[in-house]
Amino acid sequence: MMYLGIDLGGTNIKGGVVDERGAILREASRPTRVEQGPDAIADGIAAVIRELEQGERFAGVGLGCPGTVDDESGEVVCAFNLGLIHYDLRGALEARTGYSIRLGNDANVAALAEASVGAGRGAHSTVVITLGTGVGGGVVLEGRMLTGWTGAASELGHMVIEEGGAECTCGRRGCFEAYASATALIRMTRAAMDAHPDSAMHVVAAENGAVDGRTAFAAKERGDAAAAEVVNAYIRSLASGVTNIINIFFPEVVAFSGGVANQGEALLAPLREEVHRQEFGYRYVKRHARLVKCELGYQSGIIGAALLAK
Amino acid sequence: MMYLGIDLGGTNIKGGVVDERGAILREASRPTRVEQGPDAIADGIAAVIRELEQGERFAGVGLGCPGTVDDESGEVVCAFNLGLIHYDLRGALEARTGYSIRLGNDANVAALAEASVGAGRGAHSTVVITLGTGVGGGVVLEGRMLTGWTGAASELGHMVIEEGGAECTCGRRGCFEAYASATALIRMTRAAMDAHPDSAMHVVAAENGAVDGRTAFAAKERGDAAAAEVVNAYIRSLASGVTNIINIFFPEVVAFSGGVANQGEALLAPLREEVHRQEFGYRYVKRHARLVKCELGYQSGIIGAALLAK
Repeated sequence: MMYLGIDLGGTNIKGGVVDERGAILREASRPTRVEQGPDAIADGIAAVIRELEQGERFAGVGLGCPGTVDDESGEVVCAFNLGLIHYDLRGALEARTGYSIRLGNDANVAALAEASVGAGRGAHSTVVITLGTGVGGGVVLEGRMLTGWTGAASELGHMVIEEGGAECTCGRRGCFEAYASATALIRMTRAAMDAHPDSAMHVVAAENGAVDGRTAFAAKERGDAAAAEVVNAYIRSLASGVTNIINIFFPEVVAFSGGVANQGEALLAPLREEVHRQEFGYRYVKRHARLVKCELGYQSGIIGAALLAK
Repeated sequence: MMYLGIDLGGTNIKGGVVDERGAILREASRPTRVEQGPDAIADGIAAVIRELEQGERFAGVGLGCPGTVDDESGEVVCAFNLGLIHYDLRGALEARTGYSIRLGNDANVAALAEASVGAGRGAHSTVVITLGTGVGGGVVLEGRMLTGWTGAASELGHMVIEEGGAECTCGRRGCFEAYASATALIRMTRAAMDAHPDSAMHVVAAENGAVDGRTAFAAKERGDAAAAEVVNAYIRSLASGVTNIINIFFPEVVAFSGGVANQGEALLAPLREEVHRQEFGYRYVKRHARLVKCELGYQSGIIGAALLAK
């Protein structure tokens, strides 16, 4: 049996034909054309489905979408960067393709993929934390994706870790996302660069043509003290949120994706130390969550969407 | 079929015979005698089991215990106020009674009871938050108790909401528990009383013979401004943690127990307002968690333990 997984993003609609074991057989992609409105997005998705169908009928079609989705009603509740508010995406695609798609939040379905065939395969439970423009999250408990009563779970980035702290896009202050996203890391990097005109961060940024989530890590590696302080502060905040999540779920695997996760052990080694220091009952509990990098890259969105339809 | 539920507390061992529908038929209780060591605690539990058995054989025996338990191994991993560290409670009780008991954290089993036959009956998912000496929590998702890979989930009280804030018993700073427990409320009440010698809180405390979790609420009701500020600050912190939990689980019901929850609507009405203001995507999601009081009182510990054995 073949399944189709679609990863609907702000820039591209990516589709993939996925087999029973979660492997992608072929892919297709089209621009999302957000500016042309919801129906144009549905047209684009339908075109990707037709392009990949090649005469065979899929056993199921799943779609991952940013924002809040309701798989019960088939509606995208709100995906602001796609301009979709209370949009009946299932209905729109059923009319165009005949398939009744399954809907999931993009971070949730990516977590389902990592839990099933990626960093968490074989594990009791997996939490995926995406450190990108924002902080996304997905939780898979004994093979089941946590979606909550409303379909909106799990917004791990929108957990206040610093009452009254930095402003968050969600309207609260002090959210995990406002400290642990790549956006937050860049904000902290810029502030430290302003305060330290001699820092190696300026050199690194000039070499790469921009300040980004890698700047402070690279300058720290060159022995720059101000950069080390940025990285350490970032990891402290990250550890705070990650420990909160562990104290709630006590999962077997916590896997990181998104741009900042590409730092690998430069990020994960000090993070593990901080988390172990803070974890509830750490000295007594014998089993501890493994903190690792995600394995599937961009394919997790496609594979997870397909698994949702399985 | 009859089940036995045991609620092992620092002061008393409470047992109850529970029927298929989660109703308690008869109860028994003995002092826990923590000072006499782990085996004396096991003796006490065995005595409660024998007292309630009255010739009939239970279909299952469950036990709720504070701290971290491991239902897989049958071990109490750590329950500091009972002096139990890596204690094989299942083995000890099997030797004494012949029953192989099921083990759960006391807050988790209480949540299972509320979700099954209390405030959350019929709901998709229920989170119970206990506002007592500490802040405990239990999460039941589609009938299943969240215990995590280690059995230690869900320590909802040990989620940092204020980086570097008030010290917590767990070793971290700024935990939800350090702001939302009755202990925290009393700390805030005392501080406000010191700062406001004319506050009605002094009168209320004198009338009741002590400062407790009710002092500020009662004085606020008499129109005292300093007391109102204590209550408002407490509810703001509580709302912060509760919103975090909603943004993670998006449950159908959030039910409160513990001393502070006895304030009922004086607590819940302003809490709902704060939470709705902060909840992720509140304006777009149509279904919102119901914030209510728990219904089963102390019986939730007994009923939940029995349900665990079912």
